[in-house]
Amino acid sequence: MGQSTNVTWHAGSIGRKDREQLLGQKGVIVWLTGLSASGKSTVACLLEEALLERGRHAYRLDGDNIRMGLNRNLGFSAEDRAENIRRIGEVAKLFADAGAIAITAFISPYQKDRDSVRASVASPEDFVEVFVKVSLETAEQRDPKGLYKKARAGLIKGFTGIDDPYEAPPSAEIVIESDSTAPEAAAKQILDYLEERGYLTA
Amino acid sequence: MGQSTNVTWHAGSIGRKDREQLLGQKGVIVWLTGLSASGKSTVACLLEEALLERGRHAYRLDGDNIRMGLNRNLGFSAEDRAENIRRIGEVAKLFADAGAIAITAFISPYQKDRDSVRASVASPEDFVEVFVKVSLETAEQRDPKGLYKKARAGLIKGFTGIDDPYEAPPSAEIVIESDSTAPEAAAKQILDYLEERGYLTA
Repeated sequence: MGQSTNVTWHAGSIGRKDREQLLGQKGVIVWLTGLSASGKSTVACLLEEALLERGRHAYRLDGDNIRMGLNRNLGFSAEDRAENIRRIGEVAKLFADAGAIAITAFISPYQKDRDSVRASVASPEDFVEVFVKVSLETAEQRDPKGLYKKARAGLIKGFTGIDDPYEAPPSAEIVIESDSTAPEAAAKQILDYLEERGYLTA
Repeated sequence: MGQSTNVTWHAGSIGRKDREQLLGQKGVIVWLTGLSASGKSTVACLLEEALLERGRHAYRLDGDNIRMGLNRNLGFSAEDRAENIRRIGEVAKLFADAGAIAITAFISPYQKDRDSVRASVASPEDFVEVFVKVSLETAEQRDPKGLYKKARAGLIKGFTGIDDPYEAPPSAEIVIESDSTAPEAAAKQILDYLEERGYLTA
């Protein structure tokens, strides 16, 4: 594909700091990663709710609003999975630049893809990786959509944890022990992290 | 490419209305379209500034933050141009869903591409098309980046207005007469529209 040309940089008079001042918070990406049925979406929803209760502006990116919209022309090949995560990272960066707390909830199984996003953010504190850690046993017991069952039966190919690897993040900012932690407590764990590090004030 | 599977819809407890209440406004896409040098970016910046002054949360999507990020793997073929606008539309919809006022400033020359975005928004009032109308003569006189000159010299191919068509929107919500309107007045024109139609309250 051709590369971009005719692009020049010119900053508007309004910048990220102004938007953060308005919202009374700092823009950040809270990147949840973990196996299917680890509880990512539930924790993301609860975190969003807790943030809203404190008057903070958050937005969730997940399969629901991404796979049917921006990334609907992507499949599940290795190449498309990488592009899926790249686009999500780019959109999350726009939300952080807008001053929002972007919460992403995707399996995002490959270290390389997550690291690419981390390496591309404006400053290191813009990327908070949350490893929602669950044993395969627990995930398979939960299996709310019956996907593990289908994968075990060979009806879904390349399913993360079954016949496609999940690469656990070695240095996530936050680790949620999903086998033994209720979703509410997990959301609180992230909220406390954000509060302690000053993300909830401008 | 393969299509998405394994996707189910489940709403979180927090929705768009809650975010709009928090921000005290309605999410919307303000879609500026017009020739290069029509003044789109300038008007977008001034609008963003005016909105911030009123405590409203806006975010600009333009070549600067899109072409170097989300759409950096797209070139300028007809197919890539369409995909460029599609992705911008999808991202703008996410911002509107987040409760933000998304201001897009792209030439977006083809009616079909703009109509696709319009047709895909959650409700008709989510899409406010702003035609920044300028004569080719004025645009060529301004030519701040010397692009028209290069296009006339044949150094840039497929340049909108020169050797690629610009399809003027027949039913834009707002028309800015850029030949005779100062950017500040143009921004005010859009601001008034948003205010009168209740976008600046939740």
